[in-house]
Amino acid sequence: MSTAPSARTRLSRKPARGAHDRETIDAILDEALVAHLGLAIDGLPYVVPTLHARVGDTLYFHGSAGSRTLRALASGAPACITVTLIDGLVLARSAVHHSVNYRSVIVFGQASPVDTPDERQAALQAFMDRLLPGRWDEVRAPTNKELLVTSVLSIPLTETSAKVRSGPPLDDEDDYSLNVWAGIVPLALHASPPIPDTRLQKGIQPSPVVEGLLSRHA
Amino acid sequence: MSTAPSARTRLSRKPARGAHDRETIDAILDEALVAHLGLAIDGLPYVVPTLHARVGDTLYFHGSAGSRTLRALASGAPACITVTLIDGLVLARSAVHHSVNYRSVIVFGQASPVDTPDERQAALQAFMDRLLPGRWDEVRAPTNKELLVTSVLSIPLTETSAKVRSGPPLDDEDDYSLNVWAGIVPLALHASPPIPDTRLQKGIQPSPVVEGLLSRHA
Repeated sequence: MSTAPSARTRLSRKPARGAHDRETIDAILDEALVAHLGLAIDGLPYVVPTLHARVGDTLYFHGSAGSRTLRALASGAPACITVTLIDGLVLARSAVHHSVNYRSVIVFGQASPVDTPDERQAALQAFMDRLLPGRWDEVRAPTNKELLVTSVLSIPLTETSAKVRSGPPLDDEDDYSLNVWAGIVPLALHASPPIPDTRLQKGIQPSPVVEGLLSRHA
Repeated sequence: MSTAPSARTRLSRKPARGAHDRETIDAILDEALVAHLGLAIDGLPYVVPTLHARVGDTLYFHGSAGSRTLRALASGAPACITVTLIDGLVLARSAVHHSVNYRSVIVFGQASPVDTPDERQAALQAFMDRLLPGRWDEVRAPTNKELLVTSVLSIPLTETSAKVRSGPPLDDEDDYSLNVWAGIVPLALHASPPIPDTRLQKGIQPSPVVEGLLSRHA
């Protein structure tokens, strides 16, 4: 499946780095831990970090029902959600061709509140499943009261695009003969061993879910 | 030095997580590799990932002189720049108290183009110095032509705030007796060994600058 580029998602700069296929877009959305959610209030821009989860063709994000940002979005303000993964530093032979390898996705659209508690619980489970598969079944489920004070919004993945920079530096032809090391230093988010809560009951060990998280970010 | 909270930077949610001291703000800006730059064009929000560098009380960012975003900013559009560092996953005993440890900074303001080639070169050097201290002296310096096609913008760090979540999960008192592992899984960006460009001249080894990058992200 692919989304056709709109006037906003068509890349005006370096179109070769752009992608509109959903496989590329979904993989980036699913790997990124945090999204940056942008909106305009009275013409002024706001960008706030937020957690997100994709379920099929829908992107969910959530927060406190009292959040100024979420209230503005729930009342129909257009949104722009961007996620960015850093894959490495690109060291070229000249200053200006240094770069960063990254994968990013931008999603434009209008958010809708997720109204029923059942849908809201399903969305919250999706947040947890993608970060910590299996964790939902280990922990206390949300109460109705907890579901009431959580605001969940959804946005359809219709107007979206990806931008990817990968591979080696691209130097000017004349510079390849310079006596300068050039290449990539890969970067990725890695997990360290879990730190138990100081109030953890004696004898409780990290579950396979927690250990699985470590191997996924090894 | 501290910046007084404005109507926009005063936190309406969880004010205990907020900070306005420049030491906290600067440390986050300096550690983050990428910023998310937001602006509104015709009332619609745009959020684009961008590199940034702080020099004293000024935040610089740059891009192609042809970039739509940078042109809009250079002509006076208000900006919001947000950087976010992920420090770990917070595993609570109940679903809704799961969280992420993070440090983020939000900067509001109006950008100004950096006009003279000298200032532009100084800003580009600042970008490189913070990512790869010492690299500037190893590589070919920018030509005048390269400096002309690069757009550099600056924004003063006057209206800015930080938001930080750290430490263990905060569970409901009744949940601390549950038989559920709880704690933190630390996450951080780590570097892997450098990958030489396939066109690297024979015998060139990574410089101490490159090796230093590895130890900083070990």
